[in-house]
Amino acid sequence: MKKTLVIVVHPDLTKSVINKAWAKAIEGAATIHHLYEQYPNGQIDLAHEQALLEAHDRIVFQFPLYWYAAPYLLKKWMDEVFTEGWAYGAGGDKMEGKEICAAVSCGSPKSAFAEGAQQCHTLRSYLNVFDGIAAFLRARFTGYHACYDSYNPRLPEMLPANCEAYLRFIKGE
Amino acid sequence: MKKTLVIVVHPDLTKSVINKAWAKAIEGAATIHHLYEQYPNGQIDLAHEQALLEAHDRIVFQFPLYWYAAPYLLKKWMDEVFTEGWAYGAGGDKMEGKEICAAVSCGSPKSAFAEGAQQCHTLRSYLNVFDGIAAFLRARFTGYHACYDSYNPRLPEMLPANCEAYLRFIKGE
Repeated sequence: MKKTLVIVVHPDLTKSVINKAWAKAIEGAATIHHLYEQYPNGQIDLAHEQALLEAHDRIVFQFPLYWYAAPYLLKKWMDEVFTEGWAYGAGGDKMEGKEICAAVSCGSPKSAFAEGAQQCHTLRSYLNVFDGIAAFLRARFTGYHACYDSYNPRLPEMLPANCEAYLRFIKGE
Repeated sequence: MKKTLVIVVHPDLTKSVINKAWAKAIEGAATIHHLYEQYPNGQIDLAHEQALLEAHDRIVFQFPLYWYAAPYLLKKWMDEVFTEGWAYGAGGDKMEGKEICAAVSCGSPKSAFAEGAQQCHTLRSYLNVFDGIAAFLRARFTGYHACYDSYNPRLPEMLPANCEAYLRFIKGE
């Protein structure tokens, strides 16, 4: 069975609805790593992160969409953790063959994420960066799970089914 | 004449070739703001940044492409500076009507940035995030300037013409 690492990138999970529920729903099915909790001052332990990645086959980046991308600490993590000689370049094969996935919560409804609609492009197109990253690392971006419409008053009713779908996604079912 | 602010986002300009030459080429034509120099510890002065933005009509984000996006400090800047009530939401109209542009240096040649090519997607598609951001702010993303192929040994020969083109871009010519 694939060993899955879920990197949760939310600046304050106590204020989260979706990302908190997601993290709870997948307990036991993956290693869960809360990036902002681990590094409240933003100073990333490079060796720890690289060892975590090496120990897993499938890396899921879970985050709320902030300005059409992950909250900043994931970008800092990528800028620092994917080093030359480890992730790419001569001898840099440590991410090779791994699966990369995303799990993204969005404020707007799915219909707003379309070419020319309110959010301008599809969520998938905003995740194109992961295609580039995966190719550069000789890994594979294999898909994403989403929860749209987080401001909908009916979210509490809709969330349990979304969490179940997320657990299936994490288990690769 | 439009007042242009160029936010240079490079972690170490002393090691830069393109971004350093670009910043020099546009001296006098815009306000140049070196984000990593201003905030070496990553702690952003929100009031200062918002005042800078309010004083300009056209905002250019200049950066080397790291993992298909800007270096992390620009994401931190966006996560923090574009606040509700200032940039969006009730009373949040301070970015409304402004122009947003990008200037991006890339290691790979232009031919590698195409659907299905080595870099998976076009550079323009990696800049789709700026369409979303601009729409959310009721601003306009009006274009980008690029320099590809930064590892090409002929870069020193090619760079002066690119710098001249960048100056025209900054002047809106």
